[in-house]
Amino acid sequence: MTPARARVLSGMRPTGALHVGHLAGALRNWAALQETHDCFFMVADWHALMSEYEHPDRLGEFAVSNVTDWLACGIDPKRSVIFRQSDVPEHLELYAVLSMITPLGWVERVPTYKEQLREVAGRDLATYGFLGYPVLQAADILLYKAGVVPVGEDQVPHLELAREIVRRFKFLYRRDLFPEPQPLLTEAPRLAGTDGRKMSKSYGNTIGLADDEATIRATVQQMVTDTQRIRMTDPGHPETCFVCQYWKVFAPGRAPQVWEECRTSQRGCAQNKRELADVLIEVTAPMRRARAAGGYSEAAVRAILQDGAERARAVARATMRQVREAVGLA
Amino acid sequence: MTPARARVLSGMRPTGALHVGHLAGALRNWAALQETHDCFFMVADWHALMSEYEHPDRLGEFAVSNVTDWLACGIDPKRSVIFRQSDVPEHLELYAVLSMITPLGWVERVPTYKEQLREVAGRDLATYGFLGYPVLQAADILLYKAGVVPVGEDQVPHLELAREIVRRFKFLYRRDLFPEPQPLLTEAPRLAGTDGRKMSKSYGNTIGLADDEATIRATVQQMVTDTQRIRMTDPGHPETCFVCQYWKVFAPGRAPQVWEECRTSQRGCAQNKRELADVLIEVTAPMRRARAAGGYSEAAVRAILQDGAERARAVARATMRQVREAVGLA
Repeated sequence: MTPARARVLSGMRPTGALHVGHLAGALRNWAALQETHDCFFMVADWHALMSEYEHPDRLGEFAVSNVTDWLACGIDPKRSVIFRQSDVPEHLELYAVLSMITPLGWVERVPTYKEQLREVAGRDLATYGFLGYPVLQAADILLYKAGVVPVGEDQVPHLELAREIVRRFKFLYRRDLFPEPQPLLTEAPRLAGTDGRKMSKSYGNTIGLADDEATIRATVQQMVTDTQRIRMTDPGHPETCFVCQYWKVFAPGRAPQVWEECRTSQRGCAQNKRELADVLIEVTAPMRRARAAGGYSEAAVRAILQDGAERARAVARATMRQVREAVGLA
Repeated sequence: MTPARARVLSGMRPTGALHVGHLAGALRNWAALQETHDCFFMVADWHALMSEYEHPDRLGEFAVSNVTDWLACGIDPKRSVIFRQSDVPEHLELYAVLSMITPLGWVERVPTYKEQLREVAGRDLATYGFLGYPVLQAADILLYKAGVVPVGEDQVPHLELAREIVRRFKFLYRRDLFPEPQPLLTEAPRLAGTDGRKMSKSYGNTIGLADDEATIRATVQQMVTDTQRIRMTDPGHPETCFVCQYWKVFAPGRAPQVWEECRTSQRGCAQNKRELADVLIEVTAPMRRARAAGGYSEAAVRAILQDGAERARAVARATMRQVREAVGLA
C-alpha cells in the first residue's frame, strides 16, 4: 500500500520543558505539515537516554509534558501519529540490523559526533551507545519509510548517513525496501536565548511554553537589547538586537515596521520589550488555555500515546517483517 | 522471587549445522547442567547476524536444525527454557540501555575484538554493530539475572566486561538489580577438525551431528594421524595425533588403553580410525534416531521455541520493568 501523501517523521527528545524555541524551530512547522503530509511525531526517549543516561530521572515526566504542549500547538492526534519511541520495540530491532551493516568509520566520521564529544560540557558522551545516535535516527526514519524529514542544517549529515545505509541495505540484500529520505530544511532560524546564548533551560534563558504571563513579562524585561544604543535618540541596530530577532520570528508581519522604528529612534528598547512580551504571551496563550481547561490530563496524554504506539506499530511491524525476511531472521 | 537453583544462560549462534565439536564443547555440558541449574538455552540469532550479515540467508533454517540436535542431545524443553534471542525483544532493549552506559574504550579494548577483525578472513566485521557484540552478550546474561555462564577461556574477558557493566549500572542508578555473572569454565577441550585445523563446516573438516554412518566412516578414514609414524611397528605419538585426541574426548574411559596400544605399536592407525568411527557413530546415534523417528518435526521445534520465548519473556519483562524504572523510561 503506497501512502497517498508523502510520509514525514520527526521527533523531539524529552530532555526538558519546551520553550518558544521549540515552537519556532519545530512545532509550528509540524502543525503546518499535517495539512500536506502523513505525519509521525515521536517522543525520542531512547535518543534522550543516550545523552541523559547519567541523570535520566525526569525523562518520563518530560515526555508527557512535551506532548501536552504539542497538542496545545495544534498537533492533532486524529490526523498525525503521536507516539513514544520506546513504546515501539521495532525501533531497536531495525537499529540492531542497521548497526550490523553500518561500517564503524561511517559513524565515527559524522561531523556532529566529535563536535558533541568536544562541546557538550558536563556529560560523558564517549559511550558505545552515543556513537550509534545517527544510526538509531536512520532506523526511526526507515521504519516508517518516511521520504521526508524536517531537519535543521546541522542534521543534514545524519540524513546523508541514513541514505548511505539505505543504499548498503539494498546492495547487501537486493531489496529495495526503503526510500532515500530527503531533508525538508525548516525555514525557522535557530532562536537564541534571552541572554543571547544558546537557548537552554539550564541557562535560565528560555521563555517556556508553560510560563505564566508575569514570568514572560519579567523574562523579556531582562533581555539584553542593543548594547551600542545608549540613549533612546541613538539609532538602533535591530539586526544585532536579540529582541528584534524575536520580533522577526514571532511577529513576522509587524517586524519590518518595528525594525524601521528602532533604526530611526522612534521606538525605544523599553517599549520594544513590552510589546514583544505581549506578542509572546499571545503566542503561548494556547498552551496556558489548554492547561487551565484541563483538556489534556496526564491520563489523556498517555491514552493518546498508547493509541499512537499501536498505530505506529502497525506500520513498524510490517516493515520489520520485510527486514527480517531479508536478513534471514523470519 | 529468588530462583531456588542458580540460573545459567548459554547460547549458540545458528551459523551452520552442528557437529561433534558442539557436542563435546557445549551440548554434553548443557545436558548435565540441567540436573543442577535452572537453564536458559538461547539460539543467538542476533549475534549470528553480527558476523553473518553479508550472507544471512540460512540463519532461520539453522536455528531450527540446531535446536533439533539440542533436543536429541537431551536438552529438555520441560526442564530448560529453549528460545530464540530475536523472539524476545527485551534483549535489544537491555542492549540499548547497556550500550548507553558502556564507555567506548571498554568495548574497543576487549581482546577478542581486534583479534577477530584481524583473523576472521572473508568477512568485513568492522561495523558499528559488531563492536557491540560483548555488550549484547552482557544484556543476554543480565536479562535473566544469570549468575553462572558456561564459557571457554576465550570468552572470559566478555564476562569481565559484563561484570564491569553491572557495577557501572549499580553506580549510576543506585540499584542492585544484577548479580555479577561468574564463568563456569567448561572442561571440554576445543576439538580440532578432522584435518587438524579449526573445526568448521566451511573447511569440510567436521563430523556433523546429522551425518549418516557411511559419511562418518568416510570422514574418519581420511583423518590425518601421526605423521611421524611411517610403519605400524613404529611407536605412535598419541599426544600429537588428532585421532587419539578424539578418543580422549569421546571415549575417555577407553582412551588410556588406546593411547598405550598406540605408543607400544600394538594398534595401527587403520584400526584406530575404524574403531573411532564406531565410537562417533554411537555418540551421534541419538540425533539420527530422532530424525528417523520424525520426533522433532520443524513444527514441533517451532512450537518449543514459541513456548520457550513466552517463558523467557516472562522473566525478561520483569527485568526490563525494573530497568526502565531505573533509567526513567517507565
